[in-house]
Amino acid sequence: MTEVSKPLRSEGRAANSLRPVRITRHYTRYAEGSVLVEFGHTKVLCTASVEEKVPPHKRGSGEGWVTAEYGMLPRATHTRGDREAARGKQSGRTQEIQRLIGRSLRCVFDLGALGERTIAIDCDVIQADGGTRTAAITGAFVAAQDAVNWLIGQGKISASPIRDGLAAISVGIVNGTPMLDLEYTEDSACDTDMNVVMTASGGFVELQGTAEGVAFTRAEMNSLLDLADKGIRELLAAQQAALKA
Amino acid sequence: MTEVSKPLRSEGRAANSLRPVRITRHYTRYAEGSVLVEFGHTKVLCTASVEEKVPPHKRGSGEGWVTAEYGMLPRATHTRGDREAARGKQSGRTQEIQRLIGRSLRCVFDLGALGERTIAIDCDVIQADGGTRTAAITGAFVAAQDAVNWLIGQGKISASPIRDGLAAISVGIVNGTPMLDLEYTEDSACDTDMNVVMTASGGFVELQGTAEGVAFTRAEMNSLLDLADKGIRELLAAQQAALKA
Amino acid sequence: MTEVSKPLRSEGRAANSLRPVRITRHYTRYAEGSVLVEFGHTKVLCTASVEEKVPPHKRGSGEGWVTAEYGMLPRATHTRGDREAARGKQSGRTQEIQRLIGRSLRCVFDLGALGERTIAIDCDVIQADGGTRTAAITGAFVAAQDAVNWLIGQGKISASPIRDGLAAISVGIVNGTPMLDLEYTEDSACDTDMNVVMTASGGFVELQGTAEGVAFTRAEMNSLLDLADKGIRELLAAQQAALKA
Amino acid sequence: MTEVSKPLRSEGRAANSLRPVRITRHYTRYAEGSVLVEFGHTKVLCTASVEEKVPPHKRGSGEGWVTAEYGMLPRATHTRGDREAARGKQSGRTQEIQRLIGRSLRCVFDLGALGERTIAIDCDVIQADGGTRTAAITGAFVAAQDAVNWLIGQGKISASPIRDGLAAISVGIVNGTPMLDLEYTEDSACDTDMNVVMTASGGFVELQGTAEGVAFTRAEMNSLLDLADKGIRELLAAQQAALKA
Amino acid sequence: MTEVSKPLRSEGRAANSLRPVRITRHYTRYAEGSVLVEFGHTKVLCTASVEEKVPPHKRGSGEGWVTAEYGMLPRATHTRGDREAARGKQSGRTQEIQRLIGRSLRCVFDLGALGERTIAIDCDVIQADGGTRTAAITGAFVAAQDAVNWLIGQGKISASPIRDGLAAISVGIVNGTPMLDLEYTEDSACDTDMNVVMTASGGFVELQGTAEGVAFTRAEMNSLLDLADKGIRELLAAQQAALKA
Amino acid sequence: MTEVSKPLRSEGRAANSLRPVRITRHYTRYAEGSVLVEFGHTKVLCTASVEEKVPPHKRGSGEGWVTAEYGMLPRATHTRGDREAARGKQSGRTQEIQRLIGRSLRCVFDLGALGERTIAIDCDVIQADGGTRTAAITGAFVAAQDAVNWLIGQGKISASPIRDGLAAISVGIVNGTPMLDLEYTEDSACDTDMNVVMTASGGFVELQGTAEGVAFTRAEMNSLLDLADKGIRELLAAQQAALKA
Repeated sequence: MTEVSKPLRSEGRAANSLRPVRITRHYTRYAEGSVLVEFGHTKVLCTASVEEKVPPHKRGSGEGWVTAEYGMLPRATHTRGDREAARGKQSGRTQEIQRLIGRSLRCVFDLGALGERTIAIDCDVIQADGGTRTAAITGAFVAAQDAVNWLIGQGKISASPIRDGLAAISVGIVNGTPMLDLEYTEDSACDTDMNVVMTASGGFVELQGTAEGVAFTRAEMNSLLDLADKGIRELLAAQQAALKA
Repeated sequence: MTEVSKPLRSEGRAANSLRPVRITRHYTRYAEGSVLVEFGHTKVLCTASVEEKVPPHKRGSGEGWVTAEYGMLPRATHTRGDREAARGKQSGRTQEIQRLIGRSLRCVFDLGALGERTIAIDCDVIQADGGTRTAAITGAFVAAQDAVNWLIGQGKISASPIRDGLAAISVGIVNGTPMLDLEYTEDSACDTDMNVVMTASGGFVELQGTAEGVAFTRAEMNSLLDLADKGIRELLAAQQAALKA
Repeated sequence: MTEVSKPLRSEGRAANSLRPVRITRHYTRYAEGSVLVEFGHTKVLCTASVEEKVPPHKRGSGEGWVTAEYGMLPRATHTRGDREAARGKQSGRTQEIQRLIGRSLRCVFDLGALGERTIAIDCDVIQADGGTRTAAITGAFVAAQDAVNWLIGQGKISASPIRDGLAAISVGIVNGTPMLDLEYTEDSACDTDMNVVMTASGGFVELQGTAEGVAFTRAEMNSLLDLADKGIRELLAAQQAALKA
Repeated sequence: MTEVSKPLRSEGRAANSLRPVRITRHYTRYAEGSVLVEFGHTKVLCTASVEEKVPPHKRGSGEGWVTAEYGMLPRATHTRGDREAARGKQSGRTQEIQRLIGRSLRCVFDLGALGERTIAIDCDVIQADGGTRTAAITGAFVAAQDAVNWLIGQGKISASPIRDGLAAISVGIVNGTPMLDLEYTEDSACDTDMNVVMTASGGFVELQGTAEGVAFTRAEMNSLLDLADKGIRELLAAQQAALKA
Repeated sequence: MTEVSKPLRSEGRAANSLRPVRITRHYTRYAEGSVLVEFGHTKVLCTASVEEKVPPHKRGSGEGWVTAEYGMLPRATHTRGDREAARGKQSGRTQEIQRLIGRSLRCVFDLGALGERTIAIDCDVIQADGGTRTAAITGAFVAAQDAVNWLIGQGKISASPIRDGLAAISVGIVNGTPMLDLEYTEDSACDTDMNVVMTASGGFVELQGTAEGVAFTRAEMNSLLDLADKGIRELLAAQQAALKA
Repeated sequence: MTEVSKPLRSEGRAANSLRPVRITRHYTRYAEGSVLVEFGHTKVLCTASVEEKVPPHKRGSGEGWVTAEYGMLPRATHTRGDREAARGKQSGRTQEIQRLIGRSLRCVFDLGALGERTIAIDCDVIQADGGTRTAAITGAFVAAQDAVNWLIGQGKISASPIRDGLAAISVGIVNGTPMLDLEYTEDSACDTDMNVVMTASGGFVELQGTAEGVAFTRAEMNSLLDLADKGIRELLAAQQAALKA
């Protein structure tokens, strides 16, 4: 495990260190929750909109819904990508990510306590340097919390339907070294890439590990989960600090 | 014309005053030009991407191309709008605006001097309070200027293909009073709405006037153009100040 | 202004002359209004359909709606264009034009007096030689008038919801000369192109001026508006003559 | 067969009579072939465009291609239908018809003699009163003939690639009576509907019979084919008369 | 007619012979009717689903609906074809076929006796060696019969809404010889191809004949119909045998 | 671990038992590899097609590509689902699954040794009772192996580009009990659902765990991975037995 702390990463970051995390609430004016989350150079704007309607499968159920959409500005990345609206469809990657975000948030929500309304989260990547989906989940939780606070402030609900904290981080094996919070260049070069979503209570909500070229062992997986656990505890603290500010 | 200066607008703004204008260059890291332009609460991120290719109708012509795309984040507005990428197509309004931006910029570009490459401008509205298309054009010009500077810096071209300055503003008649730079609530209530794109030399590039309910007279049009002219001169100055910073 | 009357145009037309205008009512059998409008070789079929329903945003309002769609037959033009239905989407140009037609017509309609029903205008270009959108608006007004006459004849409404006359024309600067009613070859070569929609009372409904390559001055704009005003008065007379026939 | 001549149809038409047929060549200016064909109130504009390219499966083969597209103006019919371009796709019915037109024409073409180019036929229904697909085929043949004449006139080919004449008609059983050339009201009420495409030599190119509710017998089919044969001979004569005019 | 029995086909099949026909009921578990139909190497899975809803044009009519969809697995054929779901639209051919299947089945259904519900038939081609649409209709009838039996068994209807038997076969002229039930290689090489749908009572439901290159005569058509009649009687017997099993 | 063997599942299955697995090669005739894989009532047809072309990002690289598409017949399930081809797009779930299958297979392929060609895997679900994606991966591997054998048999490659075996299984926690190979009713009711893809060497290729409602602990995850490991070893044996047959 000596290698883990070798300063081989950009700006001298240790293998088990997060990039600088910044969480800015009230980033835009109109949304009930609006958070800019930054993991280093990755910047994602997460807005939470309260809508007094639910999708068809929840109508009349007395339960609400939490859903998410994800997008990336065409030049958020090193080279310009197609605009999905112009191409006329969302990529498989985009759909995968927005389904992940929505599913993760619903896991910590008591949909009955939310009442028959929707919290719609929009995660739009302003700048992408790896880890956009985990930053999105981490920021979306804070935006959702603000939307819940707004609902309570408006007297629409009396208690929070949020049952637990939630954050997400990526981990991976780069040149044989397990690392926390991969940047784009590390993500492109890694052998294994894992996204981990956890609750404040320490449970797993989502775990998505992918071998790029070489399968990974159970021991490697365990190292990665240890790193993820450490990172997520730091992110949960950053969220709480932002929510108290 | 006494009414023009009556403080009937939000924050005591006079009828012939712009909202506070802010132009922030290098807002994101990767694009050759990246500008956040703010007209009051309206915020548009304009990135300019240099691509070493041209669309089919320019291939082999020795000339380049300048094009633009426009989008609005779903919760840029007071109530959440559909995500165009999810719905699978761009609205007529979106297409109209992005065609306007591209056409306006091309009017001040010498496409031969640009060489056979494309400058692709992306204008994404982060927050919308009226005037997004005129803010987009005003910011896009600065982003395009930075992309040209980058091309010169890289030695890809030796002289600027930009022949003139360019800015845009909206004007309208609200409750009988001609006003400069309409906010959303004014825009919704106005009788006539006009978007004006002008060069630094004082020529018109685009002029789009629309009567909402009541047709407008030539005298009204002349008042609006006077206001627009004043506003555009201030915007051109703000662009130059930003470019010198 | 001597040049304006120079016979430099096809068929010896003066710069300030319209092409021959023909307005044929009852061109097809089934529509409540059906008008073939011809500006020289440009031919547009405008049908007005009365539908006893309104779009969602008008339901229960007591008000009606007027809307328009525009299309061009694939071989209306010198070379065959794609069929939009086969390609699976309408171009930005098509959407821009049909939005313009609908907006222009609504400006002279009292939607409350129309009652909760829709007049749907279809403008289909049979042959295109420049000016299709202005011919479409000019013909659509006559078709809408016939649909209103039909509604009155059927006893569905007792008074006309049409508050004013409406016509449209293009003007432009070709080789330095302001000209009225551009044909395709003039439109392709012009420096500035302006579409003007006016009421019979002389007010502006829409004004869309575009510089092609060189910005235009206020003096040029004024010359163009003078020409447009002359042309529109002639078109309004042709509409009235057709409606009396 | 006494009933066949009973004057039970609109305007006293006999069961074995065609509606008045009109074939107008050079209906529009730009297409190499442009024909308005009318079967009574059914009016279809058929244009033939010569394009110096072929679809991928013919590239380098030395052979040409003949293809067709079909459309109906939204208010060609008694009640307004959706515009396919706006809806974003062609209906199954539209595709079926345009495939039928293209296949029928190719059957009388020597694609090798055409050379590696395409004749693209556009059949657009201006007014629909039944029989639009058969009118379209009948008119498309004349337009294709004009396009071939143009090719010969231009010296691009020396001999005609058209090997035989071609026309089409509908027949059906209405209230037990076999009838030729069904109008819309007859078509809606009929038990059996058959579209027949034949060559001038008397061979069948396409035969599409459909029972609406009650299956039809071989004897009925034979009566229908007799009627179709009569109608097609009259249409072939009308085409020749138009081509000689 | 001597040639008709010449053993020129694969596996020594006579010109007037069907390929081996197999009809397997209850091929999958969940559908109310599920039939695998095989015509030689052609294999089509036909499922019939009962849905307690009807399309808009039948709502409140007291009548039901029978509809069909058709698809082909990408590698059902000799070379892989595009997946229509991935390409985002069904081909014209697919739509033509599924419309044919639905129309054919409705012809033998008493929609009033079905009650206000839908039988949705899905015909998915597992392996394609010619004749997939006729196999689909033949199998779909058996699946629909099983769905009707299920409805009766559930007490939802008391008597069968099926008024007649139904089967379909292809016939064609290959190298001058009329043949029954064409395989893929015969279908590709044939001069004329005809699909025939008939009832058990011997009436025609659909007749679709297409000349490939050379028009066909009425005598040829009569030979083909004789062959089709023979084949369909054998298919009706095979359906009955399967339904009794 | 006593509970694991409690016979609480359908057909008395133990918690740590797979459903009966059947792997049928050469299920259809034309594909280079064609395998029907059954996990109990779940049936997926996996075909492997060799195509002598590669996608753009591999052109000229000397490397090949392995890709997958996934689909479900509309009535594979208990109630009929929409046909994706008719709806005009693949669902997010479909895209997620087909990306997973392709990625998993590529992990055991040496794309350089494959040469510049594509193996396209189609996984079509004939009947769905849970675990379709894991059955698809398990069957796709066998189909890919057959396609490789075909390539070697044809002399197109001399050695296999497959570097390791591959299989996949689902595991989950149902009412507190970790279980192997979930059926549909178990999958719908489970607290946690995990899909595991492993190589024959015992490495992980993909790991996708999702909490449904309640987060899962690391201990639970370890139990699930133990079960998955057992199941995958049995699947690898079943694949080898099928390949030797």
